[in-house]
Amino acid sequence: MGNSFGKLYKLMSFGESHGKVIGGVIDGCPSNIEIDFDYIQDKLDRRKPGQSDITTDRKEDDKLEILSGVFENKTLGTPLAFIVKNKSYDSSTYKKNKDFYRPSHADFTYQKKYNIRDYRGGGRSSARETISRVVAGSIAEIILRKYNIEIFSYVSKIYDFSLDLNCCNIDKEAIEKNILRFPDNSKVDEIISFLKKVKSKGDSVGGEITTVVKGLKPGIGEPVFDKLNAKLANALMSINAAKFFKLGFQDKDISASLGSEVNDEIISTDGTTKTNYSGGIQGGISNGNDLIFTIGFKPVSSIKIKQNMINSEGIRKEVKIDGKHDPCVVPRAVPIVESMTSMVILDYIFINNSRTI
Amino acid sequence: MGNSFGKLYKLMSFGESHGKVIGGVIDGCPSNIEIDFDYIQDKLDRRKPGQSDITTDRKEDDKLEILSGVFENKTLGTPLAFIVKNKSYDSSTYKKNKDFYRPSHADFTYQKKYNIRDYRGGGRSSARETISRVVAGSIAEIILRKYNIEIFSYVSKIYDFSLDLNCCNIDKEAIEKNILRFPDNSKVDEIISFLKKVKSKGDSVGGEITTVVKGLKPGIGEPVFDKLNAKLANALMSINAAKFFKLGFQDKDISASLGSEVNDEIISTDGTTKTNYSGGIQGGISNGNDLIFTIGFKPVSSIKIKQNMINSEGIRKEVKIDGKHDPCVVPRAVPIVESMTSMVILDYIFINNSRTI
Amino acid sequence: MGNSFGKLYKLMSFGESHGKVIGGVIDGCPSNIEIDFDYIQDKLDRRKPGQSDITTDRKEDDKLEILSGVFENKTLGTPLAFIVKNKSYDSSTYKKNKDFYRPSHADFTYQKKYNIRDYRGGGRSSARETISRVVAGSIAEIILRKYNIEIFSYVSKIYDFSLDLNCCNIDKEAIEKNILRFPDNSKVDEIISFLKKVKSKGDSVGGEITTVVKGLKPGIGEPVFDKLNAKLANALMSINAAKFFKLGFQDKDISASLGSEVNDEIISTDGTTKTNYSGGIQGGISNGNDLIFTIGFKPVSSIKIKQNMINSEGIRKEVKIDGKHDPCVVPRAVPIVESMTSMVILDYIFINNSRTI
Amino acid sequence: MGNSFGKLYKLMSFGESHGKVIGGVIDGCPSNIEIDFDYIQDKLDRRKPGQSDITTDRKEDDKLEILSGVFENKTLGTPLAFIVKNKSYDSSTYKKNKDFYRPSHADFTYQKKYNIRDYRGGGRSSARETISRVVAGSIAEIILRKYNIEIFSYVSKIYDFSLDLNCCNIDKEAIEKNILRFPDNSKVDEIISFLKKVKSKGDSVGGEITTVVKGLKPGIGEPVFDKLNAKLANALMSINAAKFFKLGFQDKDISASLGSEVNDEIISTDGTTKTNYSGGIQGGISNGNDLIFTIGFKPVSSIKIKQNMINSEGIRKEVKIDGKHDPCVVPRAVPIVESMTSMVILDYIFINNSRTI
Repeated sequence: MGNSFGKLYKLMSFGESHGKVIGGVIDGCPSNIEIDFDYIQDKLDRRKPGQSDITTDRKEDDKLEILSGVFENKTLGTPLAFIVKNKSYDSSTYKKNKDFYRPSHADFTYQKKYNIRDYRGGGRSSARETISRVVAGSIAEIILRKYNIEIFSYVSKIYDFSLDLNCCNIDKEAIEKNILRFPDNSKVDEIISFLKKVKSKGDSVGGEITTVVKGLKPGIGEPVFDKLNAKLANALMSINAAKFFKLGFQDKDISASLGSEVNDEIISTDGTTKTNYSGGIQGGISNGNDLIFTIGFKPVSSIKIKQNMINSEGIRKEVKIDGKHDPCVVPRAVPIVESMTSMVILDYIFINNSRTI
Repeated sequence: MGNSFGKLYKLMSFGESHGKVIGGVIDGCPSNIEIDFDYIQDKLDRRKPGQSDITTDRKEDDKLEILSGVFENKTLGTPLAFIVKNKSYDSSTYKKNKDFYRPSHADFTYQKKYNIRDYRGGGRSSARETISRVVAGSIAEIILRKYNIEIFSYVSKIYDFSLDLNCCNIDKEAIEKNILRFPDNSKVDEIISFLKKVKSKGDSVGGEITTVVKGLKPGIGEPVFDKLNAKLANALMSINAAKFFKLGFQDKDISASLGSEVNDEIISTDGTTKTNYSGGIQGGISNGNDLIFTIGFKPVSSIKIKQNMINSEGIRKEVKIDGKHDPCVVPRAVPIVESMTSMVILDYIFINNSRTI
Repeated sequence: MGNSFGKLYKLMSFGESHGKVIGGVIDGCPSNIEIDFDYIQDKLDRRKPGQSDITTDRKEDDKLEILSGVFENKTLGTPLAFIVKNKSYDSSTYKKNKDFYRPSHADFTYQKKYNIRDYRGGGRSSARETISRVVAGSIAEIILRKYNIEIFSYVSKIYDFSLDLNCCNIDKEAIEKNILRFPDNSKVDEIISFLKKVKSKGDSVGGEITTVVKGLKPGIGEPVFDKLNAKLANALMSINAAKFFKLGFQDKDISASLGSEVNDEIISTDGTTKTNYSGGIQGGISNGNDLIFTIGFKPVSSIKIKQNMINSEGIRKEVKIDGKHDPCVVPRAVPIVESMTSMVILDYIFINNSRTI
Repeated sequence: MGNSFGKLYKLMSFGESHGKVIGGVIDGCPSNIEIDFDYIQDKLDRRKPGQSDITTDRKEDDKLEILSGVFENKTLGTPLAFIVKNKSYDSSTYKKNKDFYRPSHADFTYQKKYNIRDYRGGGRSSARETISRVVAGSIAEIILRKYNIEIFSYVSKIYDFSLDLNCCNIDKEAIEKNILRFPDNSKVDEIISFLKKVKSKGDSVGGEITTVVKGLKPGIGEPVFDKLNAKLANALMSINAAKFFKLGFQDKDISASLGSEVNDEIISTDGTTKTNYSGGIQGGISNGNDLIFTIGFKPVSSIKIKQNMINSEGIRKEVKIDGKHDPCVVPRAVPIVESMTSMVILDYIFINNSRTI
């Protein structure tokens, strides 16, 4: 269970890190959508390993292949199935220590849950699974253009290097100007040289990603359990290594504030507020202002430093893992965050549409 | 939509703040469970308004009434419907400014979504809705006892008063020793006098609640989109005023850490780890250690200080809201957080059970 | 489980036959719908026991009470909860033989499933549960008026008395002209006198109900597993005592036909067909013609004739059941069939709406 | 929407008749199940076109290919994705009349719903889609062996040739002894020569399939909307060309019976009944007796006889369709019916397991 997402725009995802393919099926894609393959491939490339000095060296083309649901370049409204073939699946490095549970990996928990495990590269627990999210998310994004909604994410923190800019004034174009997707070029060199040092030691660091959704009309979202923020939290916290979800402007410690400081005064009948501490959502429903939230990621648990491990028999040894890993996943996670956001927003728009009488 | 929660232990909730009742229906409650009414009522009382000097004065009995699904004090396995009658529903204070959108309330968003609105006390957007969560959650908790699982939450921060204790060493008995549910008595007087000052000014403050789940076996949770942490985030972020969800030990800034610092070494074949930065979950699945997470709440948006408001015609005026409100909701939110947690954990145990062959 | 129905117009139902109430909660009801209470009550009255000589004598007002979701007579878009109180719940007649499993009742299966059972009047397995369906269905019907869709059902067979008329030419007004809801008055006296004989012997008979949906545009329904006919079959076969579901014109034995005989030629670009053997659906999707289907009901299993019964200890005795029952449920089932149909159609229209771009 | 089926054992299916592949993803398959590829392939071969003189000539290998979820021949508990490649996809015969709506096909309804259509061989509306059902169903069947449940279906009627045998006394081995899957060899020659005549004329005929489930314990199923019979009706009525679903012994006209004739007396504490008019289900829950039901199929609508057709512009012409079709689909539908039944039964067993405390 757990491999499908969405109510009316629904993705079922499949594939293991070192299996034949990673893939997915989208049920609920509207018909007659022209598939912008370049856009999807570009997004996959932003997620792809080996894209820069500070990412893993795993070599993958991550070339999208559509299996169904598209006819003469347009969606049919039928299930859109797709795959990306895994190429670089040398699993010999994993075989050696296959019975040992790596610290802070899902080896132990998968073994306990399923009593069997594809030990090669983490199998299903690998972040390679997020390819499916990116494909389904980019298609959602293409559909969202018709609603004039724009979604972008950027790295707002790596280790203790934080972005000082106000999230609402980010220059979207600045994001892709550096390999960190950190929209303040002045700090980039320093961070990159820090990350190279981390990589050379075989260590890893965490970071944060902030997302802005522009153009969302007021009235999107559902009350109570399916609040828009609740479903976004669900979506984003399901990404590998995500450890926290925060709604609203990141620089304010909202739990240490007074109501009189953070209440957002409405200044126009279209819902525009003077401040936006709410992050664009009230009572689970969009209020027409920018929707803003931040996800925190732990340092990736795969490090090339000797660590103590144990196997199922209780034998302990010191192991250095050799697989291919990122010193900091956060830059590559940007398109994944955008994709999950797009899927949630589109789903809620579809739910909202449904009641048109 | 949005008013039901859970897959196999399912709550559908109903009721408006100043309507006749708040209620819910639980579908999927196992049969032959003896209903411990005192336990449920006690939990409702911990959530109840008017329980102490620092809560709202709204007077409600919040007396549980079961409508179906229980026979000779045991559950039948059929839908368990329940209600709590609303008593104190003087709505005259709301009528006066019913067309004005209160800052950081759901007035505007509900109006935009539904084009109609029960303006009395926030209608469905009021936290009074959480009564249903507490009833369904306490019944879940009663069932969880059979799995030897214990869940408790406590206030870990109010405004900038933080608990210094390690979350894993909390004395559970200390939680209810003060009206703040803050398990460090030494700071309580200071916080209470601070809150009284806030209340007297008509202002409000935010805070945080930490939850610990003990006794959860490894292997509970699902991969990918339904990771245990993702569904907990969904559940907890759906509580009114919740603004962030953080998995794992709260005092560590996980996104500013090194992998070598926060990887949790497994030291026993039962999954016990040396540290618990993971918060008890790996790859979305429980690892047998304490499950720990923290929710952050904004200051409640209902304050008795003059604020600028606008109505649907664009007329602006300065309004002081007169309804009954809490200066800090966090102490009353503790049983709600416990309840949502219980529902999620029980649901995942049921999913896990289902595959027994 | 199993007590909720629908995807976007969702009913969760609750209550036992001799419990306090029968009720339900509708999530997904659009806002601003004026509730036509007379219409709903009228439909409840058509389902009500004791409405004529040929129904059970159980005395119930079946008076609808709304608990939430309606404000100043209009729906709020929030969950619409409702109850009907059970009045005539003398359960002494059931107590006597409470451990004995009545033939063709759910006593044995509920006992095996839940290991506990509300033996009074069948508890949750009683058709009294269908009250909730009628309430939610009539509200769905009120909403469907806005789409110019009309749904009506009628008795097309009682025992071996069949309606000879072509289902498409039924005079809708004729249905309510007799207590049988059999739209051919010429046969009614004969059937009624037959049913009185059956009743006097304490026996029961089966029958059939045919439904016609007019005004449904082409394109409503989903492919593959959620075909409109598949979900209608689900909905209708969930009614107590339903034993078969047949799509299309009832007088034709479709499985003993040639393709050349029953293929429906399309004669207009609006989809109108020359014949309508398809019953208005092709590939699971409406084709714009009348949607027609028939449900078959077994004779109600509660009869006042001595029957052999067994209890959980294997003790066998001859028992005559004394409760209140109908000789033929089919006339009272007409509004239930209409209600389930309305809920399905509305749900599919909502799904269709959702993809509007 | 509509392309996924099941709650805890869930199939999402994809693919068009003349697209690259037909495939599916199973989420919720238990781990550590050894995949009996021969069994699945055998079931696919029983569904395959071209298997005998009385089926279509379309040439397909229908060779199963697993993409994920299986490791060293055992299921991982992760999504099991599979495909079957389409080989014989000459679509030239379809191109010629691509704008004309074939009678009783889904051409018109798909066009109206999606405003685009893969006209080649019916696209998604083709019964070729049922390959996915057979794969997921056979895997369900393999799992059901562990619960000692046996499911078999057979042809009980072709045109007006009915099986005279009591469904409960069918010799399971007799089913595969002839190409009709009609377990009475004495009638087979006559039926085959009749079907050859039908085929030579380019016409088609309907038929019926009866299913028997043995070994199902009492207590499986859910009440009210998810009655076991309701979900079976949903599952079976979703198969292409299915027109009715009947629960229980097929030779009895249940709606024209007396209660005293068809009530099933329980004669043992294990639930065994003297007769089985109920078909193994009471109140939506299995009673431990054989579960029996029958599906009726219309004659396949693809016939090679000139028929009047219309296109979207309203132009009418007489067309003879040239594609490859079966004179009677019923024999090939037997494994599909078995498969849908297996998926439903397994899903309900999983739901039942979930509440084990």
